[in-house]
Amino acid sequence: MIQTPYLLFLGDAPDALAAKVAQGIRDWRPEFAIGQFRMPGCKADMRLPDMTLAEARAAGCKTLVVGVANRGGVISPAWIEVLVAALAEGFDLASGLHNLLRDEPELVAAAERHGRSLHDVRVPVVDYPIANGKKRAGKRMLAVGTDCSVGKMYTALAMDREMRARGMKSTFRATGQTGILITGEGVPLDAVIADFMAGSIEWLTPDNDPDHWDLIEGQGSLFHVSYSGVTLALIHGGQPDALVLCHEPTRAHMRGLPDYTLPGLAELRDAALLMARVANPQVQVVGISVNTQHMTEEEAQAYLAQVEAEMGLPAVDPFRHGAGRLVDALAAI
Amino acid sequence: MIQTPYLLFLGDAPDALAAKVAQGIRDWRPEFAIGQFRMPGCKADMRLPDMTLAEARAAGCKTLVVGVANRGGVISPAWIEVLVAALAEGFDLASGLHNLLRDEPELVAAAERHGRSLHDVRVPVVDYPIANGKKRAGKRMLAVGTDCSVGKMYTALAMDREMRARGMKSTFRATGQTGILITGEGVPLDAVIADFMAGSIEWLTPDNDPDHWDLIEGQGSLFHVSYSGVTLALIHGGQPDALVLCHEPTRAHMRGLPDYTLPGLAELRDAALLMARVANPQVQVVGISVNTQHMTEEEAQAYLAQVEAEMGLPAVDPFRHGAGRLVDALAAI
Repeated sequence: MIQTPYLLFLGDAPDALAAKVAQGIRDWRPEFAIGQFRMPGCKADMRLPDMTLAEARAAGCKTLVVGVANRGGVISPAWIEVLVAALAEGFDLASGLHNLLRDEPELVAAAERHGRSLHDVRVPVVDYPIANGKKRAGKRMLAVGTDCSVGKMYTALAMDREMRARGMKSTFRATGQTGILITGEGVPLDAVIADFMAGSIEWLTPDNDPDHWDLIEGQGSLFHVSYSGVTLALIHGGQPDALVLCHEPTRAHMRGLPDYTLPGLAELRDAALLMARVANPQVQVVGISVNTQHMTEEEAQAYLAQVEAEMGLPAVDPFRHGAGRLVDALAAI
Repeated sequence: MIQTPYLLFLGDAPDALAAKVAQGIRDWRPEFAIGQFRMPGCKADMRLPDMTLAEARAAGCKTLVVGVANRGGVISPAWIEVLVAALAEGFDLASGLHNLLRDEPELVAAAERHGRSLHDVRVPVVDYPIANGKKRAGKRMLAVGTDCSVGKMYTALAMDREMRARGMKSTFRATGQTGILITGEGVPLDAVIADFMAGSIEWLTPDNDPDHWDLIEGQGSLFHVSYSGVTLALIHGGQPDALVLCHEPTRAHMRGLPDYTLPGLAELRDAALLMARVANPQVQVVGISVNTQHMTEEEAQAYLAQVEAEMGLPAVDPFRHGAGRLVDALAAI
């Protein structure tokens, strides 16, 4: 578990998109985001106080989180210099980069010297069990998508925020690197060994209070041939009581697969229910989350109304219009 | 790729079942199985010549294959002694044990000293790509099961043998440790990192002649919650043209999951086709392979006739009655 709160390291981010991990933390766990650290040339801005390492420590920050993608697949000497100084200042480091902190000898030496931790959330640190399929107490929601990167993480985070605001018991369960950095814990499912995927999700969503909801971050799609196995492990390891279908309507083809078109929402509903019933015969699809970021407000409203009529389920963009109706639907089952 | 032919090491196998890897090689690649090496107390017998290491080398054996499970999860000192002597004699070693040969310092030192290879087929040695879903030339059959361990490997091996006997172009593609030791190559899919599962199967079954069949060993089951993700990665990475449904009718519950009953064959057909069509809209179910080992001949015949009538597809036990009718069905598409 990563110590909070965080100083967000934006490095020399060439644009805002490169800092999407920092943005996710800023959006969903503002209480963890105390300040930002930017280097010369940084083009991203979280609208947080710019802090020196010493200022951030004085403000209570415990971990410096690498909130930015590195360029060219290497951790640059300029970054290393800052990261070593942060360890000396008393910070732990956390990163979701493919290049691991632990593979940088200078960082390993500095962490040892100062008794600090390096958290590489890209790779698992737990020996997960093989799934046993036993029914667990508590309730679970899983976001499933027509494609990758359609808003499954944001949907679960938005529902979690709404449920907490209502005083309901809920926990967002991260299954990807960004989600883990946002919340400080989770399972980096795409890096888990095949045999242990479903077991890692059972481990992540253990027995809980009967009225507690785990809101599980989805990954991939049953219809995305590169990652569908990861998705099915989530469905069977998570044994969800409720599914929310996630969709991005302006996409011309499956992400990274120019020869594959997206399935329709009815197709996704049928396939996901068929598979989810294996682990939980009572599972229901409770709503639809549409990522309308590439539509005008008018287009979005028209599309959502059409989907709602066709599918007979609440259809909302939780980022644009709030997750209230999805939570209403969850509370009703 | 493991050098053939083999000397089969049976160690101190407490019974025949413990030597099922050796039995698989003996059954399916008799031309690779030149001799056996048994230690005092060995209760398994492949009915091969018992050979000393020197005799086996003189007979042309290149690799000593550990064809037996170890007891208590350790490689015993008595085994180590034989394995070190084999390396000195000029053998490579191959093993599918969970305990890796490469983790035994004496074996590593001896292999280095004698310039020999240690093949631990339990774990991958290739950096597999992420699946790209592109259509590949050639044809592919995948065995899918109602459960784990229902005869998927034997089905594919029996079809491969029959196809070769007919002069058809076919290759058995191993996806598990036993299959890899039988054929000398393959992908240990259960040990592959989640993101690369489907890509490893694309790598295993590349472009081929238009009339060539890859016969892909299945793993797990879409209905087995512990391993279903592995199965779906096989379906989408393999993009099969043909599916053979595999079933063992006497099982009371899913293997290792006392709370889960097996799906029916029609359920398996529908779920597997639904998922397989994502990668290959032309996929067909061509036949049914039933493991009748726990039935009398009369029971088996009655059951097969009933399944055949209900499903409208050839239903056979390829191990008991040959794979001819399954191959006929494959040849017809």
